[in-house]
Amino acid sequence: MPKIVDHEERREQLAEAAWRVIRRDGVEGVSVRSVADEAGMSLGSLRHYFTTQSELLEFSMRLVSERVNQRIQNIRYSGNPRQDVEAIVGELVPLDEERLAECEVWLAFVGSALAHPKLRELSEEVHDSLYQGFRRIVDPLIQHGLAKPDIDAHLEAMRFHAMVDGLVVHGVIRKQLVTPEEIRRVVNYHLDRILL
Amino acid sequence: MPKIVDHEERREQLAEAAWRVIRRDGVEGVSVRSVADEAGMSLGSLRHYFTTQSELLEFSMRLVSERVNQRIQNIRYSGNPRQDVEAIVGELVPLDEERLAECEVWLAFVGSALAHPKLRELSEEVHDSLYQGFRRIVDPLIQHGLAKPDIDAHLEAMRFHAMVDGLVVHGVIRKQLVTPEEIRRVVNYHLDRILL
Repeated sequence: MPKIVDHEERREQLAEAAWRVIRRDGVEGVSVRSVADEAGMSLGSLRHYFTTQSELLEFSMRLVSERVNQRIQNIRYSGNPRQDVEAIVGELVPLDEERLAECEVWLAFVGSALAHPKLRELSEEVHDSLYQGFRRIVDPLIQHGLAKPDIDAHLEAMRFHAMVDGLVVHGVIRKQLVTPEEIRRVVNYHLDRILL
Repeated sequence: MPKIVDHEERREQLAEAAWRVIRRDGVEGVSVRSVADEAGMSLGSLRHYFTTQSELLEFSMRLVSERVNQRIQNIRYSGNPRQDVEAIVGELVPLDEERLAECEVWLAFVGSALAHPKLRELSEEVHDSLYQGFRRIVDPLIQHGLAKPDIDAHLEAMRFHAMVDGLVVHGVIRKQLVTPEEIRRVVNYHLDRILL
């Protein structure tokens, strides 16, 4: 199905062009015209892939979480619980340019979600799926007796999720201080306090 | 100095009108015209207080952290460290409509900070002053022997700050699940784990 693959690839390239517009001009800078310009494509050709700004924004936001999920799916687990949790969390936080781009775009999206019903719905979806992701980290640690005995599955997942999203916000708005090295140290410090 | 007081009061009322516009239409909805409309004031009168959109945004963002700081200054401390930390953190998170409004506006501002140099600078300032605030919570707990012995002042301040800002993001984008009650439970759960 080469044509379908091309179609999807082109949509992802356009979403990446939308990300660049967002990082430079904010979510409000995204229009079918500005993204066509950014991608070096005519407006007519872009309309073959996306007909409205809203469709483009929705796909671009979904692509952020799909990329992150994809990388998490591809992790080759070591069997060492600490290393494996670090590997998962490492896909969510701005440790390199690729992840920083995603984090910046995510923050721009959630910051404008209040005023865009569709982005709001997607922000809720991403929130809920991440909470479930943290449960899938915390629950087995508890079940296998790897967590400190006083760890509560629900509250720990909420706390861990909040801490990680907070590090994302800080890593985006305060890059010079909240560096990849500092983010790693905080995550490790947290793991020291929940793992036996 | 009744005239100066009036002038400041009027600027704060206009900033609050800007907050309402932001909560409804996002940061990009703010213009001298839209805020004059929202405040029921003529454009000419508004220009007496703010001449540009940028000036209005800057003042409106500063007002968020000033209001929070003001409430923290006004806390009557009980002398019970746990209650006092809860009281401070309670001013930062969306526990009621007033704080929710501030949190929504803050998130909208940091979400658009990448594309607005002045808002970016202010986001950095707010970040740094909050980190210092968390140091002023954590340092005395350590100095007075109230914190668990393995607590590190810098890493704990970073972690606590990240967790609280993460709860702010989640309390805004996922109000139905991350309720005031849940936020209080997570903060308490965290305090249980750092206090002796």
